[in-house]
Amino acid sequence: MDAKQRLGLISENLAEFLNPEIIENILAEGRDPKIYWGTATTGKPHAGYFVPAVKIAQYLAAGCDVTVLLADIHGFLDNLKAPLELVENRAKYYEFIIKATLESVGVNTEKLRFVLGSSYQKSPDYCMDVYRLSSLVSEHDAKKAGAEVVKQTSNAPLSGLLYPILQVLDEQHLDCDAQFGGVDQRKLFTAAKEWLPKIGYRQRAHLMNPMVPGLQGSKMSSSDEDSKIDLLDAPEVVTKKVRKAEAVPQKVEGNGMLALAEFVLLPVSALKGGKKQLRIERPDGQEPLVYTSVQQMNEDYQNDVLTPQLLKHAISTGLNDLIKPIREAFEANKEWQDVALKAYPPPPKKVKKVKDKGSRYPGAPPAAAKNGEEKKGEELPIRQ
Amino acid sequence: MDAKQRLGLISENLAEFLNPEIIENILAEGRDPKIYWGTATTGKPHAGYFVPAVKIAQYLAAGCDVTVLLADIHGFLDNLKAPLELVENRAKYYEFIIKATLESVGVNTEKLRFVLGSSYQKSPDYCMDVYRLSSLVSEHDAKKAGAEVVKQTSNAPLSGLLYPILQVLDEQHLDCDAQFGGVDQRKLFTAAKEWLPKIGYRQRAHLMNPMVPGLQGSKMSSSDEDSKIDLLDAPEVVTKKVRKAEAVPQKVEGNGMLALAEFVLLPVSALKGGKKQLRIERPDGQEPLVYTSVQQMNEDYQNDVLTPQLLKHAISTGLNDLIKPIREAFEANKEWQDVALKAYPPPPKKVKKVKDKGSRYPGAPPAAAKNGEEKKGEELPIRQ
Repeated sequence: MDAKQRLGLISENLAEFLNPEIIENILAEGRDPKIYWGTATTGKPHAGYFVPAVKIAQYLAAGCDVTVLLADIHGFLDNLKAPLELVENRAKYYEFIIKATLESVGVNTEKLRFVLGSSYQKSPDYCMDVYRLSSLVSEHDAKKAGAEVVKQTSNAPLSGLLYPILQVLDEQHLDCDAQFGGVDQRKLFTAAKEWLPKIGYRQRAHLMNPMVPGLQGSKMSSSDEDSKIDLLDAPEVVTKKVRKAEAVPQKVEGNGMLALAEFVLLPVSALKGGKKQLRIERPDGQEPLVYTSVQQMNEDYQNDVLTPQLLKHAISTGLNDLIKPIREAFEANKEWQDVALKAYPPPPKKVKKVKDKGSRYPGAPPAAAKNGEEKKGEELPIRQ
Repeated sequence: MDAKQRLGLISENLAEFLNPEIIENILAEGRDPKIYWGTATTGKPHAGYFVPAVKIAQYLAAGCDVTVLLADIHGFLDNLKAPLELVENRAKYYEFIIKATLESVGVNTEKLRFVLGSSYQKSPDYCMDVYRLSSLVSEHDAKKAGAEVVKQTSNAPLSGLLYPILQVLDEQHLDCDAQFGGVDQRKLFTAAKEWLPKIGYRQRAHLMNPMVPGLQGSKMSSSDEDSKIDLLDAPEVVTKKVRKAEAVPQKVEGNGMLALAEFVLLPVSALKGGKKQLRIERPDGQEPLVYTSVQQMNEDYQNDVLTPQLLKHAISTGLNDLIKPIREAFEANKEWQDVALKAYPPPPKKVKKVKDKGSRYPGAPPAAAKNGEEKKGEELPIRQ
């Protein structure tokens, strides 16, 4: 792969790429750009993670060094009542599943490293940088930088203003050339460009994925059960969830199914070494629909040639192809299984619903208690 | 000294004492309360420091363990352009002069310790506590806590919101039973009472000195040359500065001279082992005025029996008595002298004013450049 091809793969499908010259220069010198992506270790990673995972896989395929920051301190601060062991196990769970996800995409993970936030975000150098940067950044600017990812109320915790400081410093302390995230990180990324030089550090490039609609049309979220496909879900569960997903006929905008095709299945087909294409079988002896780009797909969808039913079938097949090796890796890995139980313990009392009793029989769990997972994941003021 | 006497000395002249039962219980058990006082190492400590120094001397005399926090990180953050060496030398200067000041008051400094902020405020445990507390304290509450000591503008640096967090954590990390400061710290102190238990630490007692007017009637400030007596000033300089000080005849309120008598000279006379009294000589064979309490003094001042001239003479005599041993300690200590030069280097070009040239001769320094000292001291958002 030459420098131009590498840059093409790095840039593919991005919504925005700030200071590409930083990466271009590194590629021109024949070096490998160092890219970091951060995620707070809170709720279980879901199929929405395929979107950044595909970009990370592309960075790896383009020969980049990729650092995944497992922001365990952020995860801990998000739920201070969680025992430390739980937080540690969640970080391990994230490492297992992210690695398996990348491997399921067929990419070599030799140049991938995981770094725990706690391994350096409490170090004296880092801490001093937090103080230094805090004394040079105004409250106003810190608030502005976090506007799209941090809850903005006067009751918001002070940590919300500290998070932008930390995320900016991570670029320096993780020794990266670029940070990758969703476009919801844009204000943070432009702050990073401005802030790092204030304390004598160099500016980094910033790579931004578009925000991708979820199964229910909005952003896929780990706290909304209906919009979530677990990365370990059984094939029939995936198929059922996809079947129930929103896909307004002929409407391309906000269509989570088309987004999965565009940002996951199409690029994955290329990464897997084959041609970049999505093949959609049709019933009744019709020719299959074969797409090599999303444009043609969108057009067919608008004209109802590609119907929601056809698309959904292709999506659940594609997702199950990706999930299968993740499930297999999980099933073959006793340590991961143990970690999963400790990281996301099942709700303490699971009362089996007995059909003929109805849902109001004495002792039935209240609706809210059925879901053992915390609902806080989405309040996390940092990048997912 | 019994517990009651110890408590009396600890409480003397305080404007407020929150949760005295914490100290009472320690005294009742025959133990020694641990009290901490913090000061940012910025401008040269001036005679205003005698006011907290006298209280610290009283704590020591009452058998308390006293920790002086030399907040060097705060000093550094206050002027990020200052080279680190300067900041280190300022911290050393503070230690020398505070110790000499306490010794000049005649108190045993065996139970006095100095701690550099940088020795623990960058440690992993402390840093994690900063994160933890920040995630439990709202922006609004952090702002409220710092309202009287941190500049409150939307352009204010974020560090201003972080300082209350640090100051509260210092109580825990310096392992004290009580924090001492001026009443301007009240909101911070009540925040500390509320915040420490949030992260599992115990509440501390809080001892507050009143705010004492300076030579010019307002709070004595290290950035206002006219209101400042340096702790190393020569006797004639002290006398001149006191002579020029504001002292409205018959007006007790806001009178810096009476305040020095009340909060420095009277308690010092007791600490020095003699009776608590202030003796003011009068000319023309009149009987000297002898005061054992400030009430009688204030009354005489209101009635012009104690005139500003008489009072000022007593004040400059008293201050010079206190400053003399500090000067002597300085002159006998080569290390301190070296540190002083490095901590407060003289302005680079000192053009001697030659009378017959006037002040507008070519090459005369602009008025602003004459003062080599930074003007930033007073902007420091922490306790002096």
